[in-house]
Amino acid sequence: LKVPAHQIPHCLIKGLPLVRNLSGYPQNNFGREGLSHITIAGAVLDGLKEVELWLQTFSPGSRTPIHRHSCEEIFVVLKGSGTLFLAPDLHMRQPAKPNEFSIFPNSTFSIPVNAVHQVWNTAEDTDLQMLVVISRPPVKVFIYDDWLMPHSLAKLKFPYYWDEECFHLSKDDYNDEL
Amino acid sequence: LKVPAHQIPHCLIKGLPLVRNLSGYPQNNFGREGLSHITIAGAVLDGLKEVELWLQTFSPGSRTPIHRHSCEEIFVVLKGSGTLFLAPDLHMRQPAKPNEFSIFPNSTFSIPVNAVHQVWNTAEDTDLQMLVVISRPPVKVFIYDDWLMPHSLAKLKFPYYWDEECFHLSKDDYNDEL
Ligand SMILES: [Zn+2]
Ligand SMILES: [Zn+2]
Repeated sequence: LKVPAHQIPHCLIKGLPLVRNLSGYPQNNFGREGLSHITIAGAVLDGLKEVELWLQTFSPGSRTPIHRHSCEEIFVVLKGSGTLFLAPDLHMRQPAKPNEFSIFPNSTFSIPVNAVHQVWNTAEDTDLQMLVVISRPPVKVFIYDDWLMPHSLAKLKFPYYWDEECFHLSKDDYNDEL
Repeated sequence: LKVPAHQIPHCLIKGLPLVRNLSGYPQNNFGREGLSHITIAGAVLDGLKEVELWLQTFSPGSRTPIHRHSCEEIFVVLKGSGTLFLAPDLHMRQPAKPNEFSIFPNSTFSIPVNAVHQVWNTAEDTDLQMLVVISRPPVKVFIYDDWLMPHSLAKLKFPYYWDEECFHLSKDDYNDEL
């Protein structure tokens, strides 16, 4: 028996006020150690089709997977510092040794579409907090075990960690060209 | 004689580093009193096609025009407070008397597609600072003189204030269904 998403209390956002207090938003690590993720507004709960906004905090040493996606992505670092790893070339069989860029408070960067990347809190003792904008939610992520894995072997994770529970429940609402 | 955008120094962003310091970004009011606008990443300068991110500061008493657009828009209030005015109904000939919502630090709200809205710094002495995400940049805005103006008379402002200068210079790069 399938329970529609709108009958699961925390998958229901329609009843919430238009203007919401982020301070009260539920945080979760969605099974990823050192992560705190909040979807500020997005596809699965809010029904947005074109943009989604996240607030993410990485504890020291924690990081995103090595991954790529065909959507656009913009980061703004609110607090802390770390390293952006970015594959040098889209046209090889595999990402190969990434370029490294320091990221710092008030810095911003955009990830080229389909570029393989990873964001890592390389600081010793401060959290890395970022706002992340993506297009065409919900995000479809291809994950690499390492930088030498061929693109063709990267594994699709969809729905992504934070979309998983409510997405499955509301799957019928989506027409996605997966 | 038409000068290509990439020959105008401040319309050139390709030479900038991938990770940029927002603190050094040029601010401008683009002819609108009380406004400070920064495009953190977007269509005209960065070549993004699907998302754009702004940092906007409104001094006390200043506000957006009464306007609508067919893109999605998410706001996050970083500092200050004010009022969101939102037309109650998409299906009338005109926006009509708007509903009013208080906005405050750490609040977030999304504007329904094509809903007529206005954000106003109604505080007496503090700036209202917000992050704004839009989809499908550059933004195409229809502006109303007041809440009783028929939708059909709202005036298209495109390119919008902050896109104007560099957009006109790089117009040939866009294929837009205007
Ligand atoms: Zn990413
Ligand atoms: Zn707007």
